[in-house]
Amino acid sequence: MRTSRLEAFSDGVLAIIITIMVLELKVPEDHDLAGLLHTTGVGLLTYLLSFVYVGIYWNNHHHMFHLVRQVSGGVLWANLALLFCLSLFPFTTAWMDESRFEPTPVVMYGLNLLAAAITYFGLQTVIIRQQGPESPLRQAVGSDLKGKISPAFYLAGILSALAIDRSGRIGVWIALACFVGTAIMWIIPDRRIDRVVRQHGTAD
Amino acid sequence: MRTSRLEAFSDGVLAIIITIMVLELKVPEDHDLAGLLHTTGVGLLTYLLSFVYVGIYWNNHHHMFHLVRQVSGGVLWANLALLFCLSLFPFTTAWMDESRFEPTPVVMYGLNLLAAAITYFGLQTVIIRQQGPESPLRQAVGSDLKGKISPAFYLAGILSALAIDRSGRIGVWIALACFVGTAIMWIIPDRRIDRVVRQHGTAD
Amino acid sequence: MRTSRLEAFSDGVLAIIITIMVLELKVPEDHDLAGLLHTTGVGLLTYLLSFVYVGIYWNNHHHMFHLVRQVSGGVLWANLALLFCLSLFPFTTAWMDESRFEPTPVVMYGLNLLAAAITYFGLQTVIIRQQGPESPLRQAVGSDLKGKISPAFYLAGILSALAIDRSGRIGVWIALACFVGTAIMWIIPDRRIDRVVRQHGTAD
Amino acid sequence: MRTSRLEAFSDGVLAIIITIMVLELKVPEDHDLAGLLHTTGVGLLTYLLSFVYVGIYWNNHHHMFHLVRQVSGGVLWANLALLFCLSLFPFTTAWMDESRFEPTPVVMYGLNLLAAAITYFGLQTVIIRQQGPESPLRQAVGSDLKGKISPAFYLAGILSALAIDRSGRIGVWIALACFVGTAIMWIIPDRRIDRVVRQHGTAD
Repeated sequence: MRTSRLEAFSDGVLAIIITIMVLELKVPEDHDLAGLLHTTGVGLLTYLLSFVYVGIYWNNHHHMFHLVRQVSGGVLWANLALLFCLSLFPFTTAWMDESRFEPTPVVMYGLNLLAAAITYFGLQTVIIRQQGPESPLRQAVGSDLKGKISPAFYLAGILSALAIDRSGRIGVWIALACFVGTAIMWIIPDRRIDRVVRQHGTAD
Repeated sequence: MRTSRLEAFSDGVLAIIITIMVLELKVPEDHDLAGLLHTTGVGLLTYLLSFVYVGIYWNNHHHMFHLVRQVSGGVLWANLALLFCLSLFPFTTAWMDESRFEPTPVVMYGLNLLAAAITYFGLQTVIIRQQGPESPLRQAVGSDLKGKISPAFYLAGILSALAIDRSGRIGVWIALACFVGTAIMWIIPDRRIDRVVRQHGTAD
Repeated sequence: MRTSRLEAFSDGVLAIIITIMVLELKVPEDHDLAGLLHTTGVGLLTYLLSFVYVGIYWNNHHHMFHLVRQVSGGVLWANLALLFCLSLFPFTTAWMDESRFEPTPVVMYGLNLLAAAITYFGLQTVIIRQQGPESPLRQAVGSDLKGKISPAFYLAGILSALAIDRSGRIGVWIALACFVGTAIMWIIPDRRIDRVVRQHGTAD
Repeated sequence: MRTSRLEAFSDGVLAIIITIMVLELKVPEDHDLAGLLHTTGVGLLTYLLSFVYVGIYWNNHHHMFHLVRQVSGGVLWANLALLFCLSLFPFTTAWMDESRFEPTPVVMYGLNLLAAAITYFGLQTVIIRQQGPESPLRQAVGSDLKGKISPAFYLAGILSALAIDRSGRIGVWIALACFVGTAIMWIIPDRRIDRVVRQHGTAD
């Protein structure tokens, strides 16, 4: 099985996820700047954060499949598991925004980020196992420092938001800082795969 | 006519169906775990079930068209009939979820599964007829045990949900068990087509 | 300019149009068959009609671009005009359905069908003019009987729905019969283009 | 990295943006022409304007990537920044329409146009820098008169809408004239790139 149709389907799903989140932005009832800031001021930033995260996943997915030539049934399902987690972003984003960053919705958003990271790692693992001992993806991923740090950051964010009783509002801000910081870390493109692609040639 | 554009269009429709179902997940008004479980706890599982079913159809569609080289008008319309049935999933899923598994919505969900299975079988039949006596798809499908068992399971589920007057709530649970069980049966990828693809080569 | 990206974009837009119409199907508040028939019984048939129409346009678009090798700026805009008209179907379908076939919404639905037919004809004309005197599309289209009959049917439907004061409810039924009848006429695939494709070879 | 998947993803996002705007068109509660004009008469024209703008961006994006062979991480993110700005059109369009052209929403619509123009210019700059001194895109763009005039028009529109206290309603009409006029200017396809494509050959 070639990868082209899996990539096309994933591109379609990711394009829809990244775009329908904007449907959650409520149109302000007041037609002035105060109405906009009150109704959608925060929402816009939350939307931007989720947009960036889906963009990161598309980016990494894109890079990863440059090193994949063939797709097995296991890869198809691992990919669908990742897409399922990503498809929940419009929901968790809307809840976090509507609650104005109450602890529970922030924790759920963090769990969503965590679930996406885990299923992405699962997809990577399934592909590496399928490629066997000479797997170019394994070489490209290397020690996978960023992939290991991110869940730790998400977990730290979740825990500090959960510790709200003791920390008060500050726990939520630490959580958001973790989520935003990890996104910034990922915006820098993954040069490891670029390097391996140059050595091995792409799968196309 | 080549299959590429039919596949691209089907991928687009399936990607949208699988993603817009998440729009039906209502954001809880309470911002705690109880609110989430009360408002969307069940909905999340229902969404997962429909997500898996659309994933299964994409998967099988993907496999099937590996053995198709040319597309006739009949295939185009048989494919659109399948897409129509699948496009009703967001509606039947939302109704079943909002009713908290009342018998009638569960029956409708089962009928939707049944209609999708029948139109998929119709598409398969149209392709086999077009390919003629040496049809590689016919060889790949073989006795098509899973394809014949599934409608039987859906029908069993529908009937037990209909028998609510006598069986009480238990009929609905049997129906759901049938729908979930059939999904699990299909997650295991179809090795028959993989085998035939390896023998015949793909249509690309 | 090659046609591939124009086809991909059009496929995307058509896939979304055909699928988001299902979002207009309201989930019944009553959880029994009466509730379903009352709330969405008519809607389902209306949805099916619009689904078939978008399917017909995708089908014909697909066939037409088999005979197109190059795309000019004029073709891009003629194509966007067609997509704009088709993108109004979810709106006119929802209005016609919610009004339970009041004359004005039925007329608007007919005008939408008419506008789509005219812009499709415009796209065809722009392509034929670009291809010059030996245009394979012109030969394929021939006398274009179906393309000329359809607007006449739509117009007849619009006029009979407009004559409601004199004809009463019957004008609306004639209009719907015109719209359904034209759809059935188009489901039969266009063999003329198939023939020319076989003679000329496709543009791929 | 090849451009094909970036183009496919962008096509998907643009196709969704251009189509979901129709979801904002509210179905009139009255089922006559007065109800339609009252509820959606203005909305239809606003939708058309945004449809044309997204069409223009797709068109130019399409043309631009004909001259791009390889995609770096910087191009991916510059492209996502453009898509983010474009994804806000359904929101700003809906607000401008629902407010019946109150000054603040009109200003926001203008800012959205401005942001899209700036990120498009950013994407162009990133690609030219990546292509180096012999950049075919730089030659194609040339003095980029239209690209420089457009932001000036948007800015003029924003300023006149802001000057509402002194100018009254007329400031908003000048702003809308600026936005509509710039769109008309862009509908005429960009012959510069066509010319360079003919000289250099496409990147495909």
